[in-house]
Amino acid sequence: MKHLTNWIYGVIGMITITSLSPLAASADEGMWLFNNPPKQLLKERYDFAPGDDWYLHLQRSSVRFNSGGSGSFVSADGLVMTNHHVGADCLQKLSTKERDMIELGFCAKTPEEEVRCMDLELNVLQSIEDVTGKINAAVTPGMSSAEANQARRAAMNTVEKESLDATGFRSDVVTLYHGGLYHLYRFKKYTDVRLVFAPEKAIAFFGGDPDNFEFPRYDLDICFFRVYENDKPAKIEHYLKWSPQGAGDGELVFVSGHPGRTDRLDTMTHIEFLRDKTFPNAMRKLFRREVVLTAYSAESRENARRAQDDLFGIQNSRKARMGMLAGLQDPSIMGRKQAEEDKLRKAVQENPGKFKEPIGDPWSEVAKALETWDGIYYDQDLLENAAAFNSKLFHIARTLVRLADESAVPNAKRLREYRESNLESLKFELFSEAPTYEDMEVVTLADSLTMLVEMKGMNDPLVQKVLAGRSPREQAARLIEGTKLKSVEARKELAQAGAEALRKSEDSMIQLALLVDAPSREVRKVYEEQIEEPMRQAYAKLADARFKIYGTAVYPDATFTLRLAFGLVKGFEEAGQQVPPFTTFAGLYERATEQGNQYPFELPQRWLKRKGKLDLDTPFNFVSTADIIGGNSGSPVVNRNGQLVGIIFDGNIQSLILDFIYTEEQARAVSVHSAAILEALRKVYTADRLAKELLGDRTKGQSKTKR
Amino acid sequence: MKHLTNWIYGVIGMITITSLSPLAASADEGMWLFNNPPKQLLKERYDFAPGDDWYLHLQRSSVRFNSGGSGSFVSADGLVMTNHHVGADCLQKLSTKERDMIELGFCAKTPEEEVRCMDLELNVLQSIEDVTGKINAAVTPGMSSAEANQARRAAMNTVEKESLDATGFRSDVVTLYHGGLYHLYRFKKYTDVRLVFAPEKAIAFFGGDPDNFEFPRYDLDICFFRVYENDKPAKIEHYLKWSPQGAGDGELVFVSGHPGRTDRLDTMTHIEFLRDKTFPNAMRKLFRREVVLTAYSAESRENARRAQDDLFGIQNSRKARMGMLAGLQDPSIMGRKQAEEDKLRKAVQENPGKFKEPIGDPWSEVAKALETWDGIYYDQDLLENAAAFNSKLFHIARTLVRLADESAVPNAKRLREYRESNLESLKFELFSEAPTYEDMEVVTLADSLTMLVEMKGMNDPLVQKVLAGRSPREQAARLIEGTKLKSVEARKELAQAGAEALRKSEDSMIQLALLVDAPSREVRKVYEEQIEEPMRQAYAKLADARFKIYGTAVYPDATFTLRLAFGLVKGFEEAGQQVPPFTTFAGLYERATEQGNQYPFELPQRWLKRKGKLDLDTPFNFVSTADIIGGNSGSPVVNRNGQLVGIIFDGNIQSLILDFIYTEEQARAVSVHSAAILEALRKVYTADRLAKELLGDRTKGQSKTKR
Repeated sequence: MKHLTNWIYGVIGMITITSLSPLAASADEGMWLFNNPPKQLLKERYDFAPGDDWYLHLQRSSVRFNSGGSGSFVSADGLVMTNHHVGADCLQKLSTKERDMIELGFCAKTPEEEVRCMDLELNVLQSIEDVTGKINAAVTPGMSSAEANQARRAAMNTVEKESLDATGFRSDVVTLYHGGLYHLYRFKKYTDVRLVFAPEKAIAFFGGDPDNFEFPRYDLDICFFRVYENDKPAKIEHYLKWSPQGAGDGELVFVSGHPGRTDRLDTMTHIEFLRDKTFPNAMRKLFRREVVLTAYSAESRENARRAQDDLFGIQNSRKARMGMLAGLQDPSIMGRKQAEEDKLRKAVQENPGKFKEPIGDPWSEVAKALETWDGIYYDQDLLENAAAFNSKLFHIARTLVRLADESAVPNAKRLREYRESNLESLKFELFSEAPTYEDMEVVTLADSLTMLVEMKGMNDPLVQKVLAGRSPREQAARLIEGTKLKSVEARKELAQAGAEALRKSEDSMIQLALLVDAPSREVRKVYEEQIEEPMRQAYAKLADARFKIYGTAVYPDATFTLRLAFGLVKGFEEAGQQVPPFTTFAGLYERATEQGNQYPFELPQRWLKRKGKLDLDTPFNFVSTADIIGGNSGSPVVNRNGQLVGIIFDGNIQSLILDFIYTEEQARAVSVHSAAILEALRKVYTADRLAKELLGDRTKGQSKTKR
Repeated sequence: MKHLTNWIYGVIGMITITSLSPLAASADEGMWLFNNPPKQLLKERYDFAPGDDWYLHLQRSSVRFNSGGSGSFVSADGLVMTNHHVGADCLQKLSTKERDMIELGFCAKTPEEEVRCMDLELNVLQSIEDVTGKINAAVTPGMSSAEANQARRAAMNTVEKESLDATGFRSDVVTLYHGGLYHLYRFKKYTDVRLVFAPEKAIAFFGGDPDNFEFPRYDLDICFFRVYENDKPAKIEHYLKWSPQGAGDGELVFVSGHPGRTDRLDTMTHIEFLRDKTFPNAMRKLFRREVVLTAYSAESRENARRAQDDLFGIQNSRKARMGMLAGLQDPSIMGRKQAEEDKLRKAVQENPGKFKEPIGDPWSEVAKALETWDGIYYDQDLLENAAAFNSKLFHIARTLVRLADESAVPNAKRLREYRESNLESLKFELFSEAPTYEDMEVVTLADSLTMLVEMKGMNDPLVQKVLAGRSPREQAARLIEGTKLKSVEARKELAQAGAEALRKSEDSMIQLALLVDAPSREVRKVYEEQIEEPMRQAYAKLADARFKIYGTAVYPDATFTLRLAFGLVKGFEEAGQQVPPFTTFAGLYERATEQGNQYPFELPQRWLKRKGKLDLDTPFNFVSTADIIGGNSGSPVVNRNGQLVGIIFDGNIQSLILDFIYTEEQARAVSVHSAAILEALRKVYTADRLAKELLGDRTKGQSKTKR
């Protein structure tokens, strides 16, 4: 469920609607905006009508992990809970050959032992402002698609900069309904984030890849951090109270988190494009990367440690995408999508009175843009998405090169990631002390250069320049050997040196980044001006059509921004069997035994030793009908009283198609139960300081950090 | 090094020559025919000139494993030695959930305990007859390419049938130099083959994928079988005497085995076709199959057991092909290949007097055929090579369908694999009791159907028919559920029922095989008539040109038929370090310790317990400059006296490019040393019966089976 960040993929969020009926009144569907929550629906369906303060409290208790995931405040002293697999990015970076924090886990016995993460930024949504008018005003009739794209970008960059200057908050314009609305999100930002607690991977990810996206499930997929300000635990007004008894069968629960991306209201040609182009291309890369990193990992325990978080991300993404592709290749699902589209087309045709002007044929406009995309798809992926240069050091080099060039350009004209309001976050990541491993870099870069040759051909002029007369393996080794970018000092020097000096640099990776920058920018320009902008305009018309036909209480597709979902704790039927909604600790031990206690079903020693202390009937994991997707990992699950009853960490295999269609027949969100977390912290980890803090008794554990 | 059988890949053996000089006088190069051994070269280079009986003895002591590999007779009582990874096919089929013979190994303490393999056929080459005249006489000037192809096939099928009838030997016409010569190979065939001894996989494949194709190496990659006739051990005239002291540093050694395929004298456009089409396509399939089977294996120990031999084959092939592709993408190697071609072109141009008629431009003729191939390549792979139907049960269904259709056609017109002379071997495999696992079949078939959809598109009419309105996963499950072909009885009934009855069969897999048969045959016809035949004719001209320019003492590319290679036991330099030619048992224990005795470096208990008994200085594995490739696995390594001093099991990573170019700078063949085998059999396995038989003392161990 890890949200794999990829800017191209990320910005193509599409318009979404719940179903063909006005409101999703027949289902627990929806990833709702906090400034437009499903009040009527909750009232009608569950007789639940909380005040605005209920929503605001949940909103401000929710935390976005910019490494890709969700979380929540769970104490007044800045304690944040997320998934282990979300925290793993930080754990990986803090680990060394001698101390593998992913494998061994971590527990700070005192506040002093809490360890600062290298480059973890957390965001907390403060407010949402509708700036649709401002953004759309920049685009005037008669503008070419290229002009419109530039004008829109200028407006967005400017709005964000003004908001940052005025409020000091991180300010991002979020494109909703792919252009139907533009909202300005203001976030409080935390960059001093310290690790408090992580269990061993063997229990956090018990069952490994085989049990991933499956249920029944037995994972303690949690991790605790604390945000600091001025070297002290931050004082937090909005945090979630812990429910020791947790979620019950049939209970209504809410999920507040950051779904990364959905494609529910793509046109059929667009969905077919995902099926025929996007997913197969992504799978091919994932397959080869998984094989290459698995082979690298098998060479030694240290290699395995170095690669483990990347490999987890790849395997997780592979299993998720195989499930999604299976859905896209399923005629019954595609038939449902086709019926939805046919119905909307018909409704538009039959209700011309609802539109001031004829909307034309936005479906064909999307199809036309996709045709253009088809022509540049692989180039965009290889060059601009850097699939051909699978190296952290290349990513750094490109950022340095572009930072120099973009800084010389007025804010309004910059590539989005280099806009003024984003520079602090960008540099926070760029100057991270996170380790890079040269041997692993050579392996991944060599493989991706091999793929570049396969895809563009050995005689392609750019390929020739990139390889410089060497084989991909040789050139990869030379590129990694010839760069100083492992050193943060070297990066800082280059960042200050400016574009001129960069061009003269003899650093091999800077030279490579310079070499591919022009063709990369070229393909990006085509994408933004000839594909993204026309699609934005076409989808805006489709969004408008849906609003007019079905009403306005609809939610947009996921955009890795805060959303509210809801649903019932509820089992499901699979292969004729009823799967109960809860598992227990007892089930965990049974599963381990049944699998011979062998990896990835091998329990940590401490879990074997302390089995006798545990209440084995404690509910461990549970499922609900809440509407989630990748990026929701770590989202708090709360009850009507806003108390934390669990934490999302996965969806079952049937939920993978939620990318493009909601169903609650079998699809379920999977959570760790709040009672299990408490029980494990107390009995297995004797982490009393933490358990007390969660329950609000902070007099002892936090005495040293009182302000 | 496992030779992956694939008839399409197999039949494209190309013309080969040693180097640009007449004879490979400057290198230990060559995979020589036993009816044209490198006598002059051995005399000049090593002052070695054995009599014809020396060659004949070695030839008849050599054994081909039709499952893919080589071996040799090592006793008068039919004992055969090969690699563990060659024998693994039999071990896998004999294994059950309760008894994993690959993991645990096997040792027959008495002759009665020797276990019969389910479908293992061994071939021993008796004689070679040049039938070039007969085959070429069938093709007359003016014939179209299609007519020529049919005439040639008819001649081959007929020659083979006549030979079988006359001699009773398995008779195969082997196409050498891709049409330069046609030789009739007659084999004595053994189908009652019994397992005698196999070590544990953990020592046979110590180091696993990470150490595969690497050196230094520490593997006891051996396996012993015994051939039986009339339920008694076969009496063998030609077998290799064991050398207890084994190979020494700098010693001249010979390798007699069955290299599967090389591409050394392909034209440049052909090599580029391998680089740009063949290898990338193969890699994509291997990557996804490795991921899918690894994921399946992770689900349970039993799954891992079921998939292990297939998974080994895939990983082995993946690592080999990555190495080969790296060579093809290396400008320096491609430059050498280009120089070779340029030199031959020039020599042909400058020596018109050597040719009766102008040879024209065979290079362009090959290029033209490749263009045609490019157009059908994926269809051929998906349909005729059945890449879209990755299922053992599909393979059985297709064989049944085609067997019925081809049996109704005169022998001369049949597809090659259904020629009269091959039917016995074909049915031996078809009616094998080897287990098929439905769950694994569903997984592999679903993935390959998914790939079919990705490659041909959902709207392709054949795809639509294959899926029948279902998703690939659903349809795969339905196809496996709906077939009775797991039962050998059912197969036999269908084989007897004939084409009419098959067409009416409701068996799901038979229906699928019928559905794809017409388009499969169509693409095969295009391949054979428009690609294979023109390339055969063009390459025949190139072979003739090389004979005339460089002389006739050249060897053809590998064709999975018996060849002789030679070389010196010799270390090599790597990254500035000299790698010695031998490893020892002491090195094995060091490597295991250095890797924490963790999988795949975990030694079997018996090796840990009996370490004290072993002479740790015993040479374990060694390298030589002999010219080998996949298919040579299990080949005996003999000294000047024809004594067995080792057994080939691998090549180092630098040897992978031997597919298209020979080099002895770093490329080395890797063998198990004969002294290590004896030491391990005696001290670790207390397999005294076997050790004595190897040394020729059969009075005790074999007393019960004396004839």
